[in-house]
Amino acid sequence: MQIAILSFFHYFTPMFKKRENVFEVEEGKFLSPKFDVDGLIPVITTDCKSGDVLMHGYMNEEALKKTIETKEAHYWSRSRKSLWHKGKSSGFIQKVVEIRIDDDQDSVWIKVDIGSGASCHVGYKSCFYRSVPLGKIKDSNKIEIEFKEKEKKFDPKKVYKNNSNPTKL
Amino acid sequence: MQIAILSFFHYFTPMFKKRENVFEVEEGKFLSPKFDVDGLIPVITTDCKSGDVLMHGYMNEEALKKTIETKEAHYWSRSRKSLWHKGKSSGFIQKVVEIRIDDDQDSVWIKVDIGSGASCHVGYKSCFYRSVPLGKIKDSNKIEIEFKEKEKKFDPKKVYKNNSNPTKL
Repeated sequence: MQIAILSFFHYFTPMFKKRENVFEVEEGKFLSPKFDVDGLIPVITTDCKSGDVLMHGYMNEEALKKTIETKEAHYWSRSRKSLWHKGKSSGFIQKVVEIRIDDDQDSVWIKVDIGSGASCHVGYKSCFYRSVPLGKIKDSNKIEIEFKEKEKKFDPKKVYKNNSNPTKL
Repeated sequence: MQIAILSFFHYFTPMFKKRENVFEVEEGKFLSPKFDVDGLIPVITTDCKSGDVLMHGYMNEEALKKTIETKEAHYWSRSRKSLWHKGKSSGFIQKVVEIRIDDDQDSVWIKVDIGSGASCHVGYKSCFYRSVPLGKIKDSNKIEIEFKEKEKKFDPKKVYKNNSNPTKL
């Protein structure tokens, strides 16, 4: 019963400022993030030095709050269905340099410092290690993508050991 | 009946290569993007010159194909529920310089050239024109965000005229 009351209370009291009108959301000075039906907001993570996009993830209210307060990136892991302090198991912590929010406050951009580390569970620095060729498509079932990172920064088998692969078909 | 058959056929024949196993998706050389239950894939758009994130959007299969082939960014507008050739009404076309796909191929990063134009419907160059302060939160209902872009690049009222605002509460 206590849990039910707490859930009910939480549902009607978002952690951040309530979204009251479009002008306030777009031109106002208060953070009023929009979380989707699953309680998540998409997050773009870039390397503060190179500017490269490292990963695309999601945060729930708690992950966003923890990221702001601890200055270390926290996400919501959709595969594990739990709060995810990035780097806690791999050692590849993301130190947050800046957080930006977009016009309608339904996505977040964080700039992070990963030192000489990596961000991708496959072993590359960025998750976006492959490039898609531009121009007329001959056969959309055989579009060959090009590896832009040639070497892995670490061996995932050694770092993650027996953890299950988050990639889903 | 014909429509039903076409829909059925389309459901079982995705436009791009079928995702057959995790290794192929992560380490293979073919584009096999994952579209969510709504048929969409999230897209990060950065400025090819400054590296700044300009916007976060979504593409469906057709938008991704058109972006690859025309080298101009096409998205799926979730507010208008239609294909969206960015810049067609505003003039702010995004010329695509590179497309990257991430490890599990469920998000896209495009680098674009917008010349001296803008990307945000509110009038700023980037949609991410406000910064969230880091550190201990005193009152999460009153987190003041800081404008990092001081001046709008254009007047949305003149450019978009009577188009409805895509921002939803």
